[in-house]
Amino acid sequence: MNKQKVIQVVGYKNTGKTTLICRLIEKLQADGFTVGAIKHDAHEFELDMEGRDTWMYQKAGAESIAITSDKGHETCIIHKKYTPLNKLLTNMKDKDLIFVEGFKLEKYQKIVMIKSEEDIELLSSLENVIAAVTWIPVRCNDHPVFSIDDINSILSLIYSKK
Amino acid sequence: MNKQKVIQVVGYKNTGKTTLICRLIEKLQADGFTVGAIKHDAHEFELDMEGRDTWMYQKAGAESIAITSDKGHETCIIHKKYTPLNKLLTNMKDKDLIFVEGFKLEKYQKIVMIKSEEDIELLSSLENVIAAVTWIPVRCNDHPVFSIDDINSILSLIYSKK
Repeated sequence: MNKQKVIQVVGYKNTGKTTLICRLIEKLQADGFTVGAIKHDAHEFELDMEGRDTWMYQKAGAESIAITSDKGHETCIIHKKYTPLNKLLTNMKDKDLIFVEGFKLEKYQKIVMIKSEEDIELLSSLENVIAAVTWIPVRCNDHPVFSIDDINSILSLIYSKK
Repeated sequence: MNKQKVIQVVGYKNTGKTTLICRLIEKLQADGFTVGAIKHDAHEFELDMEGRDTWMYQKAGAESIAITSDKGHETCIIHKKYTPLNKLLTNMKDKDLIFVEGFKLEKYQKIVMIKSEEDIELLSSLENVIAAVTWIPVRCNDHPVFSIDDINSILSLIYSKK
């Protein structure tokens, strides 16, 4: 991979997006690539663990909170606002490949999860689809179709894309 | 406050740094200012909550992970590496004031926590000290000295600083 690649994994709830991304990350990391992952969440989520110093900053009213450790080699940054995808991608520009879960209306190359007949319309309604990953037999003339367990073939497709 | 202000709160373990910062954040936020808070952690910390999708990305080997919610107005970004203070500050450049807990050797204006006699040497060994906040009676000719409960006076000092 010569430049940073962004691959979206989209589909309805409980169609295996996170599991697929995790299986691909494991392989890519074993192949020596650095990987980022970005998720769009449609709901509120608990930002921090109760009782931690950073949690206390947040409860006191801080709108941005960060904690970093040189010994632990880790950083956590919390903002009490939505962050657009392009800004999150900029923040990860040192990674070889970034998976994006959700953000259906964005422009990047997309793998579409198909678990039932009703999901098939996504293949024609979304922009820049590069593959369907399916739980059921799907006929599709426009895009390559992979079974959810065929991780190696999905990976080969990702490697082959610019 | 005309430009972004950075105030470090430094001192040994269990001298009340986080509590002081939280009490100041509450007041500043009530006064209409936007506040950020950055903490240096000398140890490893648990980056995410077990079982969450972002936690699974991390366990799979992703080195940067982000989650954002438009409905929840929140973002969490995790990097599996240390991030220098200047980079974290850049990330919060839209905030009026940023508190920094720890990072003793950085150059920003410092409030030094004094809980016992042994802590007093920090007042002369650290760069850019603007005040001592103390649990014990301290004589100091070089810097203003405030009791840990005198939040309003500490806040006035912060407002008065460029």
